[in-house]
Amino acid sequence: MTAGSPGAAGNAAPARLRELRGRELAAALRTDTADRAAELAARGTAPHLAVVTATADESSAWYVRSIARSAEKAGLECTVVDLGPGAAESGIRARLRTLSADPTVHGIILQTPLPAGARLEDLASAIDPVKDVDGANPLSLGRLAAGLPAFAPATAEAVVALLDHHKIPLAGRHAVVVGRSTVVGKPAAHLLLDRDATVTVCHSRTTDLAALTRTADVLIAAVGRPRLITADHVGEGAVVIDVGTNVTEDGSLVGDVDPAAGARAGALTPVPGGVGPVTTALLLQHTVRAALTL
Amino acid sequence: MTAGSPGAAGNAAPARLRELRGRELAAALRTDTADRAAELAARGTAPHLAVVTATADESSAWYVRSIARSAEKAGLECTVVDLGPGAAESGIRARLRTLSADPTVHGIILQTPLPAGARLEDLASAIDPVKDVDGANPLSLGRLAAGLPAFAPATAEAVVALLDHHKIPLAGRHAVVVGRSTVVGKPAAHLLLDRDATVTVCHSRTTDLAALTRTADVLIAAVGRPRLITADHVGEGAVVIDVGTNVTEDGSLVGDVDPAAGARAGALTPVPGGVGPVTTALLLQHTVRAALTL
Repeated sequence: MTAGSPGAAGNAAPARLRELRGRELAAALRTDTADRAAELAARGTAPHLAVVTATADESSAWYVRSIARSAEKAGLECTVVDLGPGAAESGIRARLRTLSADPTVHGIILQTPLPAGARLEDLASAIDPVKDVDGANPLSLGRLAAGLPAFAPATAEAVVALLDHHKIPLAGRHAVVVGRSTVVGKPAAHLLLDRDATVTVCHSRTTDLAALTRTADVLIAAVGRPRLITADHVGEGAVVIDVGTNVTEDGSLVGDVDPAAGARAGALTPVPGGVGPVTTALLLQHTVRAALTL
Repeated sequence: MTAGSPGAAGNAAPARLRELRGRELAAALRTDTADRAAELAARGTAPHLAVVTATADESSAWYVRSIARSAEKAGLECTVVDLGPGAAESGIRARLRTLSADPTVHGIILQTPLPAGARLEDLASAIDPVKDVDGANPLSLGRLAAGLPAFAPATAEAVVALLDHHKIPLAGRHAVVVGRSTVVGKPAAHLLLDRDATVTVCHSRTTDLAALTRTADVLIAAVGRPRLITADHVGEGAVVIDVGTNVTEDGSLVGDVDPAAGARAGALTPVPGGVGPVTTALLLQHTVRAALTL
């Protein structure tokens, strides 16, 4: 039943679907980051983010441009180091080491996709953890899981930041994460556990996915398959966070959640305009934090 | 209903409870380890495990003696470095660094409990990951989560090794881990995910624990509370792995699972004699593996 549908003409009005927008939170984070960047600049330090890419992928290029634009607006320096799709692993690793050793660089991101055969988890070991603003170095993930200070992957942190911003409680609630990637699913699970949620991680091999996801108070879709999560996967009134940013053939952006799932959900993030802008804002915030401690 | 109870005199005979013993697997692992240790000895290398303790805890002392005995039997050298319960964090860290740099030492364990205020996750960062045979360094956990080679905490690995030994399938099944510790619950969750199980992590803040654990095909109790898991927590025919080794006032060992839960479980590990002996055997196996690669 969609909100306000005629079938609900009885007693209880159908719950309105709450849209968990990310733009306001992202704007607040950017303002805070810009303020701190200005302070640093006054002391002679320009917070500096380096983005290493080794791909000809169009949506990656689009994302990198959007990071660079946001960085510039917030008063951060952003250098894009484009090694090209033919880059060798050794070359990528060497560049990450050089940037890690460069005192004028405070944050380092290694953009995906990578050349065939190269693995982010492996190469990111070459990023100094204090500059690992997208939490890609396995040491960052391990420290996160162990409850020690570390940068979380920005997307995973954006999930929890959005839930907090919209005052959605997590302690004692059942969070179901669909997707077990090292960059989103696993770190999101750790962040949610750290907030006292009971956490289930589902994936492509899960038997009867919909039966499991329907038990979620908070459902995180982070699987990278357009509209995999339908109304059938969502419990009545559940909070649904859509991490998916799938580019369709006509160039538009669709999430992992079918918008029709909003008929059952109590709250849902839009795509675009949900997790995405918060992720970018957190990357910049991390970079300024790194600049403050380095 | 207990296995073979008169109430089952109808059609289907009640399933017999399968005891998932660990001693046979532990013995097989020890034999393999002893063979490799002998090979190494023939080449002039004595595989050498160092156990650092900083506690007056009796059950810890008992465990350390049992590791030392097993090591000796398998042909490994074992040095217990007892820093005493008053040891300072800086002293423990310095000793772990010295042992990491010592070419005659192949495996290093930092025993818990630690002096008040000291955290295993923090201190274990000083253990060289190639000698981190109990997977205590956060880098080991991060690499494990990222699917990169690393030593898993022996207890967590013992859970999966026992399931494999008893030919219990994991892919697509629902594994519920009770306990979110860095040494057992979290790494066990990663190992189970890596085996394509759907994984839920529960803990002290979980709402209606029994309702959740009853949905488990495979239930892992790793919470450290005697007999917390009762028959009410176990689904009919579920496989139950009891990681608990709680020492009672009279000095006996009891698990996290009430033996009465065996009335509903399809399979259950004994305590003692289940996960424990496999854990010790894996620690020694890891040490020999480290000696082979160093």
